[in-house]
Amino acid sequence: MAHKIALIGFGTVGQGLAEILHNKGAQLRQSLGFEAQIVAVCTLSKGSLYHPDGLDAGMLLNVVNNSGKFADYLDQPGLERGWSAQQIIQDSNADTIVEISYTDINTGQPAIDYCRAAFESGKNVVTANKGPVALAYPELAALARSNGVRWAFEGTVMSGTPAIRLPLAALAGAEILAVRGILNGTTNYILTKMEEGLDYQTALKQAQELGYAEADPTADVEGYDALSKVIILANVLMDVPLTKDDVACQGISGLTSADIEQAKAQGKRWKLIGSVKREGGWIKAQVAPEMLPISDPLANIAGATNAITYETQLMGPITLVGAGAGGIETGYSLLIDLINIERKNV
Amino acid sequence: MAHKIALIGFGTVGQGLAEILHNKGAQLRQSLGFEAQIVAVCTLSKGSLYHPDGLDAGMLLNVVNNSGKFADYLDQPGLERGWSAQQIIQDSNADTIVEISYTDINTGQPAIDYCRAAFESGKNVVTANKGPVALAYPELAALARSNGVRWAFEGTVMSGTPAIRLPLAALAGAEILAVRGILNGTTNYILTKMEEGLDYQTALKQAQELGYAEADPTADVEGYDALSKVIILANVLMDVPLTKDDVACQGISGLTSADIEQAKAQGKRWKLIGSVKREGGWIKAQVAPEMLPISDPLANIAGATNAITYETQLMGPITLVGAGAGGIETGYSLLIDLINIERKNV
Repeated sequence: MAHKIALIGFGTVGQGLAEILHNKGAQLRQSLGFEAQIVAVCTLSKGSLYHPDGLDAGMLLNVVNNSGKFADYLDQPGLERGWSAQQIIQDSNADTIVEISYTDINTGQPAIDYCRAAFESGKNVVTANKGPVALAYPELAALARSNGVRWAFEGTVMSGTPAIRLPLAALAGAEILAVRGILNGTTNYILTKMEEGLDYQTALKQAQELGYAEADPTADVEGYDALSKVIILANVLMDVPLTKDDVACQGISGLTSADIEQAKAQGKRWKLIGSVKREGGWIKAQVAPEMLPISDPLANIAGATNAITYETQLMGPITLVGAGAGGIETGYSLLIDLINIERKNV
Repeated sequence: MAHKIALIGFGTVGQGLAEILHNKGAQLRQSLGFEAQIVAVCTLSKGSLYHPDGLDAGMLLNVVNNSGKFADYLDQPGLERGWSAQQIIQDSNADTIVEISYTDINTGQPAIDYCRAAFESGKNVVTANKGPVALAYPELAALARSNGVRWAFEGTVMSGTPAIRLPLAALAGAEILAVRGILNGTTNYILTKMEEGLDYQTALKQAQELGYAEADPTADVEGYDALSKVIILANVLMDVPLTKDDVACQGISGLTSADIEQAKAQGKRWKLIGSVKREGGWIKAQVAPEMLPISDPLANIAGATNAITYETQLMGPITLVGAGAGGIETGYSLLIDLINIERKNV
């Protein structure tokens, strides 16, 4: 039976998921026995659709590409229009709410309330939204558990590159002592370009032109995006209820071409590293530019790619390298969460 | 209830697992709710022990370190001595057979027969033995399935670094188009030393002194070890029933210091790469030294470390770097297989 999903939000990431389901639905059914069916989509700007027997992913994409309004989605018996997010979360027949509204990293809202409502309605949540995980992990994880539903959020760190599922599923018991990574692609792109000779402003401008950085690049370049991910990793992988007040955070906006040259002269490279480690009975977490020796696997990660190293007691260091963003990549993070919920796997 | 295991073989890897269970048993129980109990060990040289209520891991390690004979394991009511591997597999109360006898990469025996007997007796198998997986994957996987039991073998590729579980659990549906990796630590160590200026013979000798290479280094340096791993990856991850006759195999024994220098001059590095890829309707698999540009993540893997890159349709390249061998590391591969069998997870 198909896994019924309701999408709260239908931006790049939601469209990425819809595209995957549209293009690879038959293959997923055949190779994995997995089938997802979009029963609802709800957005602030495009409108809202609900059909208990399923919406057509291709038509959703089509409508969004043409008029951008769900009003143009073909009418059919049983189709409901204009339901609110809360209504869909509470009253639709979805098994899982795909929460991809937008990330408010200061309040986590409305995503936190959506998660609460979903769990209390007996529905799973998958999300790529850092807000709820970075700001309310202990509460929401407990609420999901007590309602017997699942909460998965692979996409909150490194998009669909399994930065969260790898340690949970494949390193259980190896004991993670520390985690450190290049968790923000924009800043890594800028640093790579500065190594190639551009100054900070020119590199930033290029990142903006390529769509890596936003018009206001603060969240990336001051390290706040990486900070949220450090908090998520500490909470989820190391069982430490860290909040942002516990983490010293410094970005890359202060790095000059002279700094880059100085590192080069020492055979090193600047990288913006988010890290958390146990030290004695203490936890030390920070986001800061670090000068890494070239022999460090993280030093060789170029461009917008992300990477993470888990220091484990039994396996030593394990490093994972992959995409950190992208509509299809983050759409895939939602898919792999759904597949593993359906499999009843971690 | 504890997961009961019988160890067929008790060399470095079996002792690694016993050491982990002895040292971290309480922590595994507390943090994961997982408990494994060794009920039997059986070896050709040390003897054999079986107790349905469990053997003491600490005492097993002690006895092996002292006399090396299970005859010195303290007597106790219910303890059985001298059972054969087949008897333990068929008649013990183990839930899972840990098959770590020894790897005969030409016949796969006796490990293949042990797997068959275990499955037919309704027991799971976990193994770090490449033989059964490289030589009999389709048959044994089907036999396990038809008997409703599990077969796991994380340790056959990259020890406990999750080269197999990462794609199965965390990249399902992303569609793996190609896999390529540094799958043999010994040859990578030799190549790293040759880059530092040693000639092949001196580097090999050093690898032998460090215990990375065996007295007869053929299996490593001629690429046969990497070949088995390529076959395993093709069968398990890409569903291609490849055998060794399908894979061109060349090792590193022909590489000279002049070759190394030539690569350096081009800004490249020689690495022994095992690879398998879909190309049109065909599968192309090989083991061969390749000159990689420094920008390739695999080019920067130094020493005995292993690494693997999965080329996926939805996520692009994903690279995993970690230990490729070691008693504790391979012992851990058996533990993570057991944990996931107990979790009923991939």
